[in-house]
Amino acid sequence: MKTDLQSLMASKNIDALFITGPVPHNPAMYYFAGGAFLTHAELIVPREGEPLLFCGPMERDEAAKSGLNIKLTTDYDFKAMRKEAGGDVPLAMAMRAKAMLEDAGVTKGRVSLYGKTNIGPLYAMFSNLQKIMPEIEIIGEMNSTVLLQAMATKDEDEVERIREMGRITTKVVGMTRNYLASCRAKDGVLVTNQGAPVTIRDVKMKINLWLALEGVENPHETIFALGRDAGVPHSVGNPDDALKLGQTIVFDIFPCEKGGGYHYDFTRTWCLGYAPDAVQAMYDDVYDTYQKVMGSLELNAPTSRYQEMTCDLFAERDHQSIRDDPKLTEGYVHSLGHGLGLNLHEAPWFRGKATASETDLLAPGAVVTIEPGLYYPSKGMGCRLEDTVYVRPDGTFEILADFPLDLVIPVQEI
Amino acid sequence: MKTDLQSLMASKNIDALFITGPVPHNPAMYYFAGGAFLTHAELIVPREGEPLLFCGPMERDEAAKSGLNIKLTTDYDFKAMRKEAGGDVPLAMAMRAKAMLEDAGVTKGRVSLYGKTNIGPLYAMFSNLQKIMPEIEIIGEMNSTVLLQAMATKDEDEVERIREMGRITTKVVGMTRNYLASCRAKDGVLVTNQGAPVTIRDVKMKINLWLALEGVENPHETIFALGRDAGVPHSVGNPDDALKLGQTIVFDIFPCEKGGGYHYDFTRTWCLGYAPDAVQAMYDDVYDTYQKVMGSLELNAPTSRYQEMTCDLFAERDHQSIRDDPKLTEGYVHSLGHGLGLNLHEAPWFRGKATASETDLLAPGAVVTIEPGLYYPSKGMGCRLEDTVYVRPDGTFEILADFPLDLVIPVQEI
Repeated sequence: MKTDLQSLMASKNIDALFITGPVPHNPAMYYFAGGAFLTHAELIVPREGEPLLFCGPMERDEAAKSGLNIKLTTDYDFKAMRKEAGGDVPLAMAMRAKAMLEDAGVTKGRVSLYGKTNIGPLYAMFSNLQKIMPEIEIIGEMNSTVLLQAMATKDEDEVERIREMGRITTKVVGMTRNYLASCRAKDGVLVTNQGAPVTIRDVKMKINLWLALEGVENPHETIFALGRDAGVPHSVGNPDDALKLGQTIVFDIFPCEKGGGYHYDFTRTWCLGYAPDAVQAMYDDVYDTYQKVMGSLELNAPTSRYQEMTCDLFAERDHQSIRDDPKLTEGYVHSLGHGLGLNLHEAPWFRGKATASETDLLAPGAVVTIEPGLYYPSKGMGCRLEDTVYVRPDGTFEILADFPLDLVIPVQEI
Repeated sequence: MKTDLQSLMASKNIDALFITGPVPHNPAMYYFAGGAFLTHAELIVPREGEPLLFCGPMERDEAAKSGLNIKLTTDYDFKAMRKEAGGDVPLAMAMRAKAMLEDAGVTKGRVSLYGKTNIGPLYAMFSNLQKIMPEIEIIGEMNSTVLLQAMATKDEDEVERIREMGRITTKVVGMTRNYLASCRAKDGVLVTNQGAPVTIRDVKMKINLWLALEGVENPHETIFALGRDAGVPHSVGNPDDALKLGQTIVFDIFPCEKGGGYHYDFTRTWCLGYAPDAVQAMYDDVYDTYQKVMGSLELNAPTSRYQEMTCDLFAERDHQSIRDDPKLTEGYVHSLGHGLGLNLHEAPWFRGKATASETDLLAPGAVVTIEPGLYYPSKGMGCRLEDTVYVRPDGTFEILADFPLDLVIPVQEI
């Protein structure tokens, strides 16, 4: 949680965070300045003392909504700095960054870089900053950054926002299910009331509309993948494909709050009309694994336990897993889940024992996805079941939005 | 245009581009790999030879849609590299990046970094890469990067996509205008047929719905700013505000194609019911400037000419401009426009003469916004008029989507 940040920074010997970029769709910036729509800002978060936000004068009103202390970038005489730098713009930007750090009270120690933005100019600026400010050490943390560790557990307000996104997501999934069930089938293909084949494009358009009606964003492409495509975990589906009966549909939907806030992540696998035996058997293996994993979650357990358990359970049923071969494309080819919040994918991670980090735990306040799946593109099928789970401080586990796990959506034939 | 890239790279002595991040909403990556929904990839574009795209095995199907040569990241033995690096992950990533560069035929020269992604890990990786690969020089270009210079002029296909976004944008603006005109006013406030005040939240919800119906994305927050907020260029508007008659509404809308592709950018200023004298006078000054600038655009002219012209025209009518004072908050406080494409804001820029770059021209193929405005937050008003213009190779100028410039939307009083 945000309140852990100071001690996390101390434990990693980090003296300040230097965050750059817009507020929307930039989790590090949003975490502190959420609610303000800034197209670009800098934010310095010292370990001791108050964060300081820098923005252009046109965005001062939006910046004020963040509740942070604010300085305008125009308070720094960039023209003079560029002159002093002999026209070298990255150097002039580094000079301004140095002044900003000093104004935020950061004059030494380790400064960790954050923010989703264009890496080229930033690399140039920070390389220069390192040269002109040797009294600081500029670092970039990898996977388990202090900020991701803070974000890995959520307070009640954050969980409530994710829960609300779950309510909206499953509402739209329900509308999608009802729509599909309301169509009829002709010659093995789903058709509209007017008799035209229903394509993946049609369904996705409706999903996007329903999400917009709920006032949320869908910045990533929804996965609605049919048959063989369902057998490739991140295939988003071919828009022109008509929905055929008896084929697996992997429907993975992950919208976020308007303005790039908290996400939800949810997957069901459906078969229209009927499930062929091979599909039913694959689904049963995923379903059983899902239930066993869900039933065995324990507070503060390492997430790797469940990735290993999933590999074991699938192995018992003769499915290969990524543990056997990292290049695997048939069987269980990914990890069991991930943390979820301002990032669609964040800590804790569900790596296997061999590469697990000791910080990947089901800590109180964690919000994680559980999403076992099996993929057989060569057999034209795939299956994944995913729910988002909140690790309650009392040690119980809450699926943040309930929705039936059923495989088959019954469809009337014409 | 993309066909200029090789010569642009030669002129700046750049031997390769190293692009990182997802495809959607990451213009540098999208420019080459658009159409493939990759959540993360690396792309190396050598000056000589073919680009090479690197992705994870789960996304191989999506990657294939890019039409680029592909290598899987699992083709590199990261485990062995991490071991060789003594567990130092940024160093191991740098070792993999070195192998990728070599596989793309890049073994020396200047390598320029691109991509919108998390700067921390990338800074760590590229700092390490620079150390282990001293035969290359890693650089980050600032504003006028070779890629932005290539992107600054569009081919017919790109223009047609922007034109289509313009058609959709102005259609939605028209629906918004018709909706507002269909409401009635009570006690100086717009009300629904049910008599409830119409708020900015209501209007934005409809705008988002209509955009979703058209199958496009609206990843940035629409500006629909009323009265005093209209006087602050990037204030997005207060959702709870009810629409009052006689107040300026700055409506700036900038959606993009689904999947983070080409944008449109468009602004009108409206007054519901009537325009007070001060608002009408301000509007007239912006309107006259808009018309004079539009009427004087010339092929290959420096954009700075029009920024200077705008400052001159406003000065004649006693408005201060940013040329007089970069910290200005009342008067003409921004630049006249910007290029538009995969980036909402890109080259050519419309800087004043003092800071202009010689590459900021109305070159054939450029697509730019023209958006003069005046801002008086202290008087509770602001005004901006913006259209997107295509610099046709034959030297004529095409506003890519027509829409009336009228200020007042007549409203019936109850």
